Amino acid sequence: MKVPLTGAVAPYVTDMSDEPEFRRDPVCGRWAVVAPERSRRPMTLDGAEPRHRKNGERKPCPFCPGQEHDTPREVLAYREPGTPADGPGWRLRVVPNRFPAVRPDVDEEACSVGGMVFVTTPGLGRAEVMIECPEHLTDPTKLTDGRFADVFRAYRDRLLTLAEDPRLAYAAVFKNVGAEAGASLGHTHSQLVATPVVPDAVEAELAGGKEFYTRTRRCVFCDLAARELAAGKRLIARSANFLAVAAYAPRFAYEFWVLPLAHAARYETLSDAAALELAVLMKRVLTALDRAQAEPAYNWFLHAAPLRSAELPHFHWHLEVLPRTARPAGLEWGFGCYITTVAPEQAAWELRAAL
Amino acid sequence: MKVPLTGAVAPYVTDMSDEPEFRRDPVCGRWAVVAPERSRRPMTLDGAEPRHRKNGERKPCPFCPGQEHDTPREVLAYREPGTPADGPGWRLRVVPNRFPAVRPDVDEEACSVGGMVFVTTPGLGRAEVMIECPEHLTDPTKLTDGRFADVFRAYRDRLLTLAEDPRLAYAAVFKNVGAEAGASLGHTHSQLVATPVVPDAVEAELAGGKEFYTRTRRCVFCDLAARELAAGKRLIARSANFLAVAAYAPRFAYEFWVLPLAHAARYETLSDAAALELAVLMKRVLTALDRAQAEPAYNWFLHAAPLRSAELPHFHWHLEVLPRTARPAGLEWGFGCYITTVAPEQAAWELRAAL
Repeated sequence: MKVPLTGAVAPYVTDMSDEPEFRRDPVCGRWAVVAPERSRRPMTLDGAEPRHRKNGERKPCPFCPGQEHDTPREVLAYREPGTPADGPGWRLRVVPNRFPAVRPDVDEEACSVGGMVFVTTPGLGRAEVMIECPEHLTDPTKLTDGRFADVFRAYRDRLLTLAEDPRLAYAAVFKNVGAEAGASLGHTHSQLVATPVVPDAVEAELAGGKEFYTRTRRCVFCDLAARELAAGKRLIARSANFLAVAAYAPRFAYEFWVLPLAHAARYETLSDAAALELAVLMKRVLTALDRAQAEPAYNWFLHAAPLRSAELPHFHWHLEVLPRTARPAGLEWGFGCYITTVAPEQAAWELRAAL
Repeated sequence: MKVPLTGAVAPYVTDMSDEPEFRRDPVCGRWAVVAPERSRRPMTLDGAEPRHRKNGERKPCPFCPGQEHDTPREVLAYREPGTPADGPGWRLRVVPNRFPAVRPDVDEEACSVGGMVFVTTPGLGRAEVMIECPEHLTDPTKLTDGRFADVFRAYRDRLLTLAEDPRLAYAAVFKNVGAEAGASLGHTHSQLVATPVVPDAVEAELAGGKEFYTRTRRCVFCDLAARELAAGKRLIARSANFLAVAAYAPRFAYEFWVLPLAHAARYETLSDAAALELAVLMKRVLTALDRAQAEPAYNWFLHAAPLRSAELPHFHWHLEVLPRTARPAGLEWGFGCYITTVAPEQAAWELRAAL
């Protein structure tokens, strides 16, 4: 056995390139991505203020019109008729992430390594950035209803396109608002990371939903929606087709979920009209959250059926909003156990009051 | 169905007391603790500096000698012979958490609620704080070797005592250093949270270890240790009986694990001599981390066999150290997928160089 002496510095030799790779935790099986290339991404939001958002940064940023040369070529844009790609004239623009965590061009066969303990596989996938408006807005609630609806339409449009690549199983769609929530640039944007595997958190929900369905022949989300409507105490707001509720077992105080009332596993079925209705509801609740919690940093993410999935009876797409209202500590990170000091019923009450 | 009008504020009525409760996520089954009482805890580390530690705070703090009246009565203390409990003269002191997430005195039968969707159970358990030294040190690497060893001895002593309560299945032991890692007080301390269930993250490791053992008749951690010693590239430091290695599939850059070389599932078997050896190794590697990453905030936590467990062939106790070197964002929070930009091999090289 080659044991470096304690304190002696062995030269750093790696058999890895700079290419991203997935690695499986040898014990619990959790996947991680090692992506050295991403360390070169610009960080303009250093976040001196930990809980709340920070809006000051240089302008124009790489996401502003006229800076299209700063981003890779667009893969989707909603733009004025007649304006050429990769120039101004857009109102929403999706581009590959310039500092991707995963890449579509890795040599999948050449470097797959299987093993009993150390399992790695190339970081195949697509990482995209959705620039949600041309104006340098850092707060999504400042978008008009139409622009906000564009975001939800564009999620759908990208999922439909990404599904055409048979190597990809899932597209994770998420948004980081504020440095504390992991945003590195302020200009309001979402991200998509499509991977060859369904992420663990979605697998856990699919499995939980299936188990509930097997026992009851009902969708757990449909059941949840009906119960929350009946009980009312965790209800924040609703529209004709959507519901916003405080999460029953939250990770963070003021965590809330938004889901369609009618069963739908596939987000791709969302109509333009429904996208607008969803946008109006989300904007209202996020504005209430900003009022109630002094503009906290937050993430939202979309949990939907995997790409090319059949309509599943046991799963129901939804958005989860996680405000960074506390700092997870050892109990959360080490044991997966989340403590909240604000009961969801209290949070819902405060958010209703702030609507 | 009772549906509040959107915008109308229903009065906040709750059928809950202030008592902590466990709640199960209706979909994926993750447990959370709702503990309103904890919102009253003092927070002296507001953490204007997000990544690094902040040491300034009022003194004397509630953990300093002479302030013993500020904490509940000690359940363990290493103190000078003849000094009375709950006064000065101690070098390490364990007290119930004054703002507990779980409590030993909840009425377990009275308020257990089962259901298909909303499952809650009283927040039974014990939450304790281990004050690691009388001096107002905020940095554990400033402890003498002997004091540092006291911490690892006291973990063992508390696990042995907590195991006497048959209602408790597991005691989560962890430490938060720096506001960004969730510490609310700077005076160096650890925490113990003992619960009637084994936490999800430990269950996942127990299950992963068992699966590996079933296939190979080997402990995955023993295998990992042997392979890391042989390969050397993720090795940070070792002593006669312990190993510190960069995690193969890290959640955060510079994450490292410390484990005994000889198989041991139960932390309770740790000898005083081994506690000292472990302390010396941990101090060295943490000091290197401080040098390499400018004193980052971090957590460490102990993963060990459940209380009153038999010696398990498939599990192996270990410490995991998670430096807060990046801010988890939507991909991490929403999908359980962690991205690191520093390869573990690079991290190990840097930490070896900083030893």
